[in-house]
Amino acid sequence: MQWTVEAPITFAYKVRETPDVLDPASDALLFGFIDDPETLRRAKARPLKRVVVVDETVHGLYGDRIEAYFEHHGVETRLLVLPTTEENKNMDLVLQIAEAIHDLGIDRRMDPVIAIGGGVCMDIVGFAASIYRRRTPYIRVPTTLMGYVDASVGAKSGVNFEAEPGVWKKNKLGAYLPPALTLLDRSFLSTLDARQLANGAAEIVKMAIVKDPELLDLLAHYGADLIEHKFQDLPAASGHAAADLKAPSRVLYLSIQTMLEELAPNLWEDSLVRLVDFGHVFSMELEMACLTGPDGVPTGGDEKLFHGEAVAVDMAFSCTLAHVRGHLDERTLTLILDAMRALQLPVYHARFDSALTAEALYERVKFSSGQKIPLPSGHGVGNIYDDITQAQMDEALYLWKHLCA
Amino acid sequence: MQWTVEAPITFAYKVRETPDVLDPASDALLFGFIDDPETLRRAKARPLKRVVVVDETVHGLYGDRIEAYFEHHGVETRLLVLPTTEENKNMDLVLQIAEAIHDLGIDRRMDPVIAIGGGVCMDIVGFAASIYRRRTPYIRVPTTLMGYVDASVGAKSGVNFEAEPGVWKKNKLGAYLPPALTLLDRSFLSTLDARQLANGAAEIVKMAIVKDPELLDLLAHYGADLIEHKFQDLPAASGHAAADLKAPSRVLYLSIQTMLEELAPNLWEDSLVRLVDFGHVFSMELEMACLTGPDGVPTGGDEKLFHGEAVAVDMAFSCTLAHVRGHLDERTLTLILDAMRALQLPVYHARFDSALTAEALYERVKFSSGQKIPLPSGHGVGNIYDDITQAQMDEALYLWKHLCA
Repeated sequence: MQWTVEAPITFAYKVRETPDVLDPASDALLFGFIDDPETLRRAKARPLKRVVVVDETVHGLYGDRIEAYFEHHGVETRLLVLPTTEENKNMDLVLQIAEAIHDLGIDRRMDPVIAIGGGVCMDIVGFAASIYRRRTPYIRVPTTLMGYVDASVGAKSGVNFEAEPGVWKKNKLGAYLPPALTLLDRSFLSTLDARQLANGAAEIVKMAIVKDPELLDLLAHYGADLIEHKFQDLPAASGHAAADLKAPSRVLYLSIQTMLEELAPNLWEDSLVRLVDFGHVFSMELEMACLTGPDGVPTGGDEKLFHGEAVAVDMAFSCTLAHVRGHLDERTLTLILDAMRALQLPVYHARFDSALTAEALYERVKFSSGQKIPLPSGHGVGNIYDDITQAQMDEALYLWKHLCA
Repeated sequence: MQWTVEAPITFAYKVRETPDVLDPASDALLFGFIDDPETLRRAKARPLKRVVVVDETVHGLYGDRIEAYFEHHGVETRLLVLPTTEENKNMDLVLQIAEAIHDLGIDRRMDPVIAIGGGVCMDIVGFAASIYRRRTPYIRVPTTLMGYVDASVGAKSGVNFEAEPGVWKKNKLGAYLPPALTLLDRSFLSTLDARQLANGAAEIVKMAIVKDPELLDLLAHYGADLIEHKFQDLPAASGHAAADLKAPSRVLYLSIQTMLEELAPNLWEDSLVRLVDFGHVFSMELEMACLTGPDGVPTGGDEKLFHGEAVAVDMAFSCTLAHVRGHLDERTLTLILDAMRALQLPVYHARFDSALTAEALYERVKFSSGQKIPLPSGHGVGNIYDDITQAQMDEALYLWKHLCA
């Protein structure tokens, strides 16, 4: 006797653009996760309790406003200020958050945990909420561009795992539970430096190249302005027409829109056919290679590539590969490379060589049951390919070096 | 601007009755999770790797057969024998399993983690697999009756959580990821003692009372035989007609069938209207009360109630309550109480009193947004009620004491 159980679940969540989320006049942070008027009425009638997790940088910049916000609304708050670095992204911090949740004694449906910070902060809080009582609602407020356009809009959370003493594996433990709500407040981006902005912009470039011609043209046209003006409205003095001053807002809107179109039907990553993997096929090897110097010795901070920078180098090579394979004309290739340069993204790295492409292709085939490699197939459109050869990659490497080195 | 994301997922899993799962001639344990012939062909062409987690009792009884099974099939095995007691059911064991998974280097789709043991073993392994790489397939082989009819067929996993030093909260961390496959092998039950069998039988009684008239009659008729013959086929010498010797098998089949009907549409427990909560409204308080003696001092092992025993006491009271409220006639109430006695389940406990029912009702309302209390509404049929009063409970307590004390 055998039973085949089919259990359908629909995960529903909201992603909302909200200006100045810390303005006490806004209650989006407290009640924005509720749609139904009756539930809202009940939520407002109860004493409010919130666990709020922020990273140290955010606390330094916005701590006073955050505390004032919750005080204004009379919320019993447990504010955790955590050292959310990649080095600390582990189960210990997750359990610390779980303790705070337990300690405050929140309602399992009505009192979402709130994360305000960068990708690591949201990853840790999302995972803690995902496993506490098998799931507890949580809210994400990204304060970095990478968080805004990438980490916040999907369902993934996770921490690094110490597989053996001293050997940490990235994001090996995690969950796929989406937040109840993500609040996108662009004003947080105004305190980021150019390198942090470029890092996040890489994921915008990714969606533009394989999925959105309008976004690609906007990046080509406004790349330098976006970084200079930190994704805020452009000043009239920037020389653009009045109608164009809101281009940064349009860029952010289109990135979220295209990202959600790709993520939502594949929330649990059951399908390995994923356009969002573009720029992530070769970059993983590059990131790992850059953790050690050419002599195998771990390098200091200077050599370290940000995730988005490695993705950018991958994309510059991959677009050249698409050109060599005949998918992408020279004009679009040039437009893409120029847009990345304008966004202050690297398009070349000396450690990205033939051996690295071979290793990356081998790992890709192993983990994805076949190549399934996304590449641009034209201007703002992409496709998945399974017939990439080492000869093509070597030809692309030669041309890429010529164009980008 | 707001996006409302609706991401539908279907979790599919199999529950299969398999005689003698450790017989080397059977490959259900290795390949039973695969349906598709092409995937099966690929799986058989690869070297086999399995992390196998068993508890110490199971290893003592079946360790040689388990090792021989995997050796016969040429499987590279990482066998973990863990002290899976309630006291050890925590993140440390989960991380130990994750390390073994990482160490063996399994394929993320093709090499499911295997748990052979009781409920705690399956809870820990299920949770480790649920979070490793955000999900890794796993297989459950329950060796206790509680595991067979209850813990194995749903999606839940979890561990206890140390909320503050020395204070452990039961199942506070966990996940809802179902196993790829559950293999039900009744022969494991033959090494259990009467108290362990009765403990699991409580969950069968639960489903019978609220959902299955045939199952209820079978329990009333064969209760004593089921325990005496450990849920194996009855011997011809037991005095039953030849056609009835397979009654234990029918009982197990009906429990799984009814349990899956209730669990599958509500795998993530989104709905709080749950017939499967019958017997679990008051028993939680009773279990907690029995962890301390009447003077508040923690008691030793003798006083400790098994989960199923607390559920049985709850059910005996709850059926009396249903009778007092006019849902259940006296004949059916008597039949239920007699069936529980025949299954060697307790139907009374001195610490179950008016204060306890009041406290349990208060907690229920708090955590379930209303009473939503399942009670039998007839012979093998149940309903959810929201209008239970303390006066009715006190009247029921009086009658119940008379019938059961």
